[in-house]
Amino acid sequence: MSHPINLAEKLAQISTHWDPHVIADYNGNEVMVVKFQGEFPFHLHEETDDFFLVLKGEMVMDIEDRSHPVRAGEIFVVPKGVTHRPRSEHECEVLLIEPKGEPNTGDAATAASKPRI
Amino acid sequence: MSHPINLAEKLAQISTHWDPHVIADYNGNEVMVVKFQGEFPFHLHEETDDFFLVLKGEMVMDIEDRSHPVRAGEIFVVPKGVTHRPRSEHECEVLLIEPKGEPNTGDAATAASKPRI
Repeated sequence: MSHPINLAEKLAQISTHWDPHVIADYNGNEVMVVKFQGEFPFHLHEETDDFFLVLKGEMVMDIEDRSHPVRAGEIFVVPKGVTHRPRSEHECEVLLIEPKGEPNTGDAATAASKPRI
Repeated sequence: MSHPINLAEKLAQISTHWDPHVIADYNGNEVMVVKFQGEFPFHLHEETDDFFLVLKGEMVMDIEDRSHPVRAGEIFVVPKGVTHRPRSEHECEVLLIEPKGEPNTGDAATAASKPRI
């Protein structure tokens, strides 16, 4: 049964970084919340765009030869095939959308498990 | 070129209600912002889920035999084929995601035009 999903309540259950947790499904995509702090590896997704919405704090998206600050209330969509690196000096909270089963690193061997909360 | 998209700046350009504006693309979906006030018609989308994230204010999602308040910071995903009606006594601001070309009413004859901003 459908019901409202409170992002802050879900984020309060997460104490780790770079560890997306699935909170909803949309047409074969997983809607996730995650906390970022530090640097993620540069990576790319061959077959999918990568959707980020910063909910709290600020991250930086390194992409090609530029660094984009992405602040709370801002979206950044990384097109498929584009190498990128999210990073954040201080902890920030992010909503992610990726197709179900897509590795967060673009590589199943190094990907997080994406538990459902 | 990818760049951060500020939701409040986009919403400041919208003065109408029930009039989604496209702000980004994700894998063949349109990411939109919209202002709701009053009642939308009951409708359904035969082939797609319908993604709502309330950014500011509060809406109610009438779905089947229940009414769900959905507040700022909350997501509601209406599964495909399920009849629903968003409504809001006071103006509220919402992020929507639907496949490109999907009519917002579920019916091309009555749909809004979804301009890009």
